[in-house]
Amino acid sequence: MFKDCLDRVRENGPLVHNITNYVTVNDVANVILACGGSPIMSDVIEEVEEITTVCGGLNINIGTLGAAIPAMLKAGKKANELGHPVVIDPVGAGASRLRTETVLNLLKELKVDVVRGNISEVKTLAKGSGTTQGVDADVADAVTEDNLDESVAFVKKFAKEKNTIVAASGAIDLVSDAETCYVIRNGRSEMGRITGTGCQLSGMMTAFLIANRGNELEAAASATCTMGLAGEIGWKYMREGEGNSSYRNHIIDAVYNMTGDQLQEGAKYEIR
Amino acid sequence: MFKDCLDRVRENGPLVHNITNYVTVNDVANVILACGGSPIMSDVIEEVEEITTVCGGLNINIGTLGAAIPAMLKAGKKANELGHPVVIDPVGAGASRLRTETVLNLLKELKVDVVRGNISEVKTLAKGSGTTQGVDADVADAVTEDNLDESVAFVKKFAKEKNTIVAASGAIDLVSDAETCYVIRNGRSEMGRITGTGCQLSGMMTAFLIANRGNELEAAASATCTMGLAGEIGWKYMREGEGNSSYRNHIIDAVYNMTGDQLQEGAKYEIR
Amino acid sequence: MFKDCLDRVRENGPLVHNITNYVTVNDVANVILACGGSPIMSDVIEEVEEITTVCGGLNINIGTLGAAIPAMLKAGKKANELGHPVVIDPVGAGASRLRTETVLNLLKELKVDVVRGNISEVKTLAKGSGTTQGVDADVADAVTEDNLDESVAFVKKFAKEKNTIVAASGAIDLVSDAETCYVIRNGRSEMGRITGTGCQLSGMMTAFLIANRGNELEAAASATCTMGLAGEIGWKYMREGEGNSSYRNHIIDAVYNMTGDQLQEGAKYEIR
Repeated sequence: MFKDCLDRVRENGPLVHNITNYVTVNDVANVILACGGSPIMSDVIEEVEEITTVCGGLNINIGTLGAAIPAMLKAGKKANELGHPVVIDPVGAGASRLRTETVLNLLKELKVDVVRGNISEVKTLAKGSGTTQGVDADVADAVTEDNLDESVAFVKKFAKEKNTIVAASGAIDLVSDAETCYVIRNGRSEMGRITGTGCQLSGMMTAFLIANRGNELEAAASATCTMGLAGEIGWKYMREGEGNSSYRNHIIDAVYNMTGDQLQEGAKYEIR
Repeated sequence: MFKDCLDRVRENGPLVHNITNYVTVNDVANVILACGGSPIMSDVIEEVEEITTVCGGLNINIGTLGAAIPAMLKAGKKANELGHPVVIDPVGAGASRLRTETVLNLLKELKVDVVRGNISEVKTLAKGSGTTQGVDADVADAVTEDNLDESVAFVKKFAKEKNTIVAASGAIDLVSDAETCYVIRNGRSEMGRITGTGCQLSGMMTAFLIANRGNELEAAASATCTMGLAGEIGWKYMREGEGNSSYRNHIIDAVYNMTGDQLQEGAKYEIR
Repeated sequence: MFKDCLDRVRENGPLVHNITNYVTVNDVANVILACGGSPIMSDVIEEVEEITTVCGGLNINIGTLGAAIPAMLKAGKKANELGHPVVIDPVGAGASRLRTETVLNLLKELKVDVVRGNISEVKTLAKGSGTTQGVDADVADAVTEDNLDESVAFVKKFAKEKNTIVAASGAIDLVSDAETCYVIRNGRSEMGRITGTGCQLSGMMTAFLIANRGNELEAAASATCTMGLAGEIGWKYMREGEGNSSYRNHIIDAVYNMTGDQLQEGAKYEIR
């Protein structure tokens, strides 16, 4: 039950090690706190193994790479050794060879629990190269009711090949391992006009995975529903004159106030 | 018409490559989304040429320099080669030799479409050295009704010497090439109590330049009016107990909701 | 009087040089502006001496270390030479050897006016090693009414050993030099669910120290009360549906609007 997944995050208070970009890092930290976890950020190679050790899981986000690639690998190997869940967010994969190759290499070197990106980024990784336009999904790649069957088949195949769960975010979210796919219809299109809602989801998802070991697919799906539902609830609090900056606050606030029951009732998904 | 400049940003959805500081980067991303553009941040030398290539223009902001100087130069040369507009924001020029010299060198090595800074920073660049106090303009440098004629003459001369448009922000904004100067009286003094309204303007201005090629001076002036007018509109939504943190949100929200007509009516400027 | 401490910040407009983490840096900048100061961020070794020279004081925060350690040392030595106040925020000391040793080394090499951290971080520094869980204080370390006497004795001893003021934040804040301890009961527990309220306090405290030279202990205590009281005032403005993201804005807004008289009346402290 999704209710239990969220309740366990609140009870467990998971520590999340984030190696993430400097663009959206503050919102990632606040949403992890909002859902009941505790964030720590470190991309310094001298300390990442120790930081990962005191945490329960690792969130790797390649939004701004800088000197962090060796630290990502080192922290990831340590997390694997400790049996901690690892999430990778392939921000902008396809926009540069460095991004695409970094993620493909991390997928080869590490046991990754979830790859959480937009559908264009996931397609880039499946093909090994790509044409993503910046950090937003390409309209041509969008998962729609019309191409849903083939999209579900695609994410299952990718999940099988890479031996990971894939969480492809968009108007319709797909969260899938090789055999089962959650098709999720929470959220609002206006969330795409805020920087970092995807990054936030990856951070929060890591907290859900830590608190729900052995139940990774449902944990990833329930985190996705939590984010989407927070987007719906947050929108209801939009006042006259408000736009994307206030909407960002309302969404994190909605995560902060969300109860397990509210999630259970508001989650809109089917399993394929 | 300023209305057309904003409308074209909304229609065009320009991708902006930002090499910018880690202090205000989140707000820069959100304001670019608010005006209708899409931001991508990268200062990694291995990928900046590719990132600039998928984008339509480049915003270079020296607020925190780190290892990014060679990346700024490399991205800038590529943007020039592709005919993309380049904006430089000389944050804190004058506060250190490194900042002053970095900007002067970029101005020498690159074709820069707009230098967008506060008046103290611009004066520092004109003199080749400076005494800026931190990142805020010196009161003694302020453009006022009393020194307006000489200030207009100064920015025209600087624009001519550097073969660029200069957008000097303050209580009165001056946006000028060698021959024409927009004197803009939008905005509120309380905007100076928020970190990064200048950085936000530079990011948004790059989006305006991309969507209005061949019309750079009007694009830069209309972006300046958009920011100032958003400051006026945002202030009207200030509630009891609110201060600079909420004001920041209201301003970005006002950009998000601004229509071309609203800009056309609210823009306060004269041409000299 | 605490009233005078805040009023002097507003009159003086102190420039604060911050070498701080990229997670909470935007909020640190905005809270420094809110209290009447002006922030500049630089961790680039080539310029930190010049930046520190144009500023009135230095705030060193080790939340994300990167390449900044040599810059911290260089800026700190220059600040010492100039007689500027120096604040150190030992974020996550105990979570890695690098963090613990970096702070201990800075304390050995520099004259530090205030160490401002949570009680677990301070205990780690006193012992020379630690077991902090991430960046939040350990429940077992919390200062309570039951252990208040020994906690006060502990911070006085640490302050004496390190020849610094210590400001240990928590449900009860202790701000002490070797002889006098302010025991402060402002604030709300929900502040711990926002990332960076501690970092904000360290930045604001540096502004208070600059504007109140020769009165460091009272300056540090009044900054601590200002932050806690802002947490109380900000909470009153929480609307239906709001959570930690909006609370962050309300707190900075409350600092922005706080008067010296409001601080004087709202400060809850005793001296031991």
